[in-house]
Amino acid sequence: MTTIAKLVFDCLRDAGVTTVFGVPGDYNFALYDELETREDIRMITNRNELNAGYAADGYARVKGAGAILTAFGVGDLSAMNATAGAFSEQVPIIHIAGSPDSAAHEEGKLVHHTLMNGDLDVFRRMHENVTVRAVRITEANAAEEIPLAVQQAVEKRLPVYIDIPQDVAEATIELPEPLAGTEQEAINSEWAADAIYKALSETDRAVLLVDLLTSRYFLEDAVIAFSRHYQLPTAQSMQAKSAFPESDPQYIGTYGGQFGEEDVTSFIEKAEVIVTAGLLLSDFNTAKFTAALPEEKRIDLYHDHVVIFGDIIEEAPIIRVLEELMKKEKLAFHQKPPQQKEKLTFTDDDPLQTDIYYQLLAEAIKSGDVVSVDTGTLSYGMPYVPLNGNVRMIAQGSWQSIGYALPAALGAAAAGRDGHTWCLIGDGAAQLTIQELSTFTAEDLDVTVILLNNKGYTVERKLHPPRPDASYNDIPEWDYEKLVQGFAPDFTYASVKTAGDLQKVLQSGEKKRFIELIVEDWTDAPMHLNKLNETLRS
Amino acid sequence: MTTIAKLVFDCLRDAGVTTVFGVPGDYNFALYDELETREDIRMITNRNELNAGYAADGYARVKGAGAILTAFGVGDLSAMNATAGAFSEQVPIIHIAGSPDSAAHEEGKLVHHTLMNGDLDVFRRMHENVTVRAVRITEANAAEEIPLAVQQAVEKRLPVYIDIPQDVAEATIELPEPLAGTEQEAINSEWAADAIYKALSETDRAVLLVDLLTSRYFLEDAVIAFSRHYQLPTAQSMQAKSAFPESDPQYIGTYGGQFGEEDVTSFIEKAEVIVTAGLLLSDFNTAKFTAALPEEKRIDLYHDHVVIFGDIIEEAPIIRVLEELMKKEKLAFHQKPPQQKEKLTFTDDDPLQTDIYYQLLAEAIKSGDVVSVDTGTLSYGMPYVPLNGNVRMIAQGSWQSIGYALPAALGAAAAGRDGHTWCLIGDGAAQLTIQELSTFTAEDLDVTVILLNNKGYTVERKLHPPRPDASYNDIPEWDYEKLVQGFAPDFTYASVKTAGDLQKVLQSGEKKRFIELIVEDWTDAPMHLNKLNETLRS
Repeated sequence: MTTIAKLVFDCLRDAGVTTVFGVPGDYNFALYDELETREDIRMITNRNELNAGYAADGYARVKGAGAILTAFGVGDLSAMNATAGAFSEQVPIIHIAGSPDSAAHEEGKLVHHTLMNGDLDVFRRMHENVTVRAVRITEANAAEEIPLAVQQAVEKRLPVYIDIPQDVAEATIELPEPLAGTEQEAINSEWAADAIYKALSETDRAVLLVDLLTSRYFLEDAVIAFSRHYQLPTAQSMQAKSAFPESDPQYIGTYGGQFGEEDVTSFIEKAEVIVTAGLLLSDFNTAKFTAALPEEKRIDLYHDHVVIFGDIIEEAPIIRVLEELMKKEKLAFHQKPPQQKEKLTFTDDDPLQTDIYYQLLAEAIKSGDVVSVDTGTLSYGMPYVPLNGNVRMIAQGSWQSIGYALPAALGAAAAGRDGHTWCLIGDGAAQLTIQELSTFTAEDLDVTVILLNNKGYTVERKLHPPRPDASYNDIPEWDYEKLVQGFAPDFTYASVKTAGDLQKVLQSGEKKRFIELIVEDWTDAPMHLNKLNETLRS
Repeated sequence: MTTIAKLVFDCLRDAGVTTVFGVPGDYNFALYDELETREDIRMITNRNELNAGYAADGYARVKGAGAILTAFGVGDLSAMNATAGAFSEQVPIIHIAGSPDSAAHEEGKLVHHTLMNGDLDVFRRMHENVTVRAVRITEANAAEEIPLAVQQAVEKRLPVYIDIPQDVAEATIELPEPLAGTEQEAINSEWAADAIYKALSETDRAVLLVDLLTSRYFLEDAVIAFSRHYQLPTAQSMQAKSAFPESDPQYIGTYGGQFGEEDVTSFIEKAEVIVTAGLLLSDFNTAKFTAALPEEKRIDLYHDHVVIFGDIIEEAPIIRVLEELMKKEKLAFHQKPPQQKEKLTFTDDDPLQTDIYYQLLAEAIKSGDVVSVDTGTLSYGMPYVPLNGNVRMIAQGSWQSIGYALPAALGAAAAGRDGHTWCLIGDGAAQLTIQELSTFTAEDLDVTVILLNNKGYTVERKLHPPRPDASYNDIPEWDYEKLVQGFAPDFTYASVKTAGDLQKVLQSGEKKRFIELIVEDWTDAPMHLNKLNETLRS
């Protein structure tokens, strides 16, 4: 026998979710009471539900899956942007909502946090659009539905929504039978591997493009082994940044279509066979659809199927196909001549600009660290910045919701990777979620926040060339030093304007710090964004 | 000829919406470009979209209707809680979303801010659940749909959602014909008035209960005239607070069911006929359904119909029914004997507690002021605090989303009532939306923020008696003085602990101030919440 509240957290723990984010409210007390007493799961309360959702997202990208516990209605909908973002970005967030008691549901009572129209199922229905499963729990279905929802989130790398009425959370039921393992896929992997091997054998110009879903399914090791085995020249997409070790001899760079580095783009696009691992053809990833990756040259490996030159082979998961390919003889491919990138030289007094601070950050961010990058100039720049070995970069290339990076960094820090957590965020994005800084203090979690202060929404000025001076892209000037003192008194604050200052402050061993980069020339931006800006002008 | 962007803002202006809130993004540039150039509409950009939605809600409660302009997907969903709240609370917010160009919609392109599944209609569909109309604009339907959506929001006092693809915003169309006036309702008002008059004539124990929709439809004047004409003893509900002038001789108090003041509850519940104006039987308004207002004693006047002792008379709008009733002879009713409330006496050194600070606030808040009250102990207390004549109180009794009051106060301040704007918010609620304080500074709008610091979610401790010390109801301690300096440097900050200190600081003539009330005894709470707490214990 178990209470349903216990069952929920048992399932989360079994899925590796050992931290739950959220905000308490009067329909989720029974769930919070259970959560508070557990020693196997950490409870982190957030400053609001959107931030909780982002934190769970960041946590899931490091740990495999994440969870939030919110109140029905007000809480659910405040987190909706984060939930939809997790769907867009393929991140499993298990969203548990504490709702009014079953009688209120059945009778359509006009209780608070409802639309006052008697429809208490509406939030669950809304969540059907942005989750892979949205279910209301009853005493009758709990033993089946709760484990199933958690399992679906983890397997499909998508969010789920579980509405638990407050009386149901307290109810006691018989422990469910453990779920039977999913049936072994009937796989065509061997056949697919043969076909791929044949295609690779017929050319000496093949490349591997590592993409988003490699990270989302935590398939990095298999993909790296494949690249090395065949000595395939390997690039990663913008959205796959940090999925492939950049120090690897096979690594040739980030592929950014017409806005990327010319030598990399040219090498990829001249290949006769392009093997992709977890390809996503989004506008950001394809540099506004300028990427030239025609289907007739592509072999696309996905989580559960393969596409060879346009022909789909179902039930051939990448992991099995790669296993088969690893059994075969090595092949020889034309390698990309190394392009020596000169290290930028500068003096201490040089004002901060893109090339300088990216180089200094690249040096400061160490193997094992996590870097949470917000949407803006930084998300256009960081994919091209060389990162040390085992760094994990977190960003929203598909959903691009500004304000994500700070709460996501909180989640990443809570996930407990070995290294340090970095949050790179613009002053525009910081406005949306700044209060979450205080949770690092409350929970004693470390982070270095790098706030790029370039006076407003620079990325929007770049994306809308006719009106670079539009006043709607201005933002209020905040005194970040005061805000750090107000929210997070154990953090140090530094404002830096020159290369030398940044270099010095990055060398400090502080574990909780907020560094404001003050940029004089707001038009300064990374290559990819500048090339996009030029295209929009023409 | 007009551009569609122009048409949108013309329709808003014609509906009296002369301030638009929101956050810019790269799918709404064409709309923001138009908005920025207009002299008849003020553009206020917010710190995030949820805050923008709350601001538009506060604005609408003062001005009649409000509007936000957000980006598709990320922006829309961040504002979703505010939009649903406006539905629950019956407040017209016109939500304009700038979306990807029509070709992306038609082809299901994998552009950013989408779910990456080709479904670009999903956000509009989700909004169908929480608006009265959710429409995507095309060049073909713009002339009809835009005026219609704005009209429906205003008439039905509910939010609407208008998705405008970026190319459509820039398109030029022929100016639409002005909408024909809505047809005169075929009314049964005269018949209803006769039936009501007859019922009133047969008793000397009738009362009037003014409720929520009186405020939402701005029907105060007609309801006041009706009360005076018949000398009906008149109470207001918790959620109608400030709909009826409390200095009026007919006013008897706030009706709060079993958790309210006993003399008022008893007088109302002993009446033989209870006329209600805009009744809402929500859990909050009925004091957890303890209100004894049986249908067989009730005459309910609504915006568009009347219910007499359970019989519905359609197409009999309150405004017409009251017009008819005003033509009839006066009647005489048993009046409630005045209950003299003794003024609390205290010394300067008395620590702050509920009765003291409510009395001091009641004196400080003047006729013409707006008071935005957040959900928490304050929303349980303020309905019973006597307010001067023409004060308007704003709160969410149905939706109860914490964090609402600060952005709503911004909207109320922008709506430009004669008096001062007050924001009463707890430390728990303030966490969610604190950054919006900076918009008062950016837009030079005045407010007095009263922050009640009682160390966490006191209301939740009261609502969950088994666990008053649950750690999930704790929140990080912020240094509000530093935060005020960081967000709003032109504000004064004061922290007060005693009655004398509060009295002194309230006498200052500051127009932009932040007053932190530091309460020693967190268990101190208003009557209604304490009675509810006692019920939950038993």
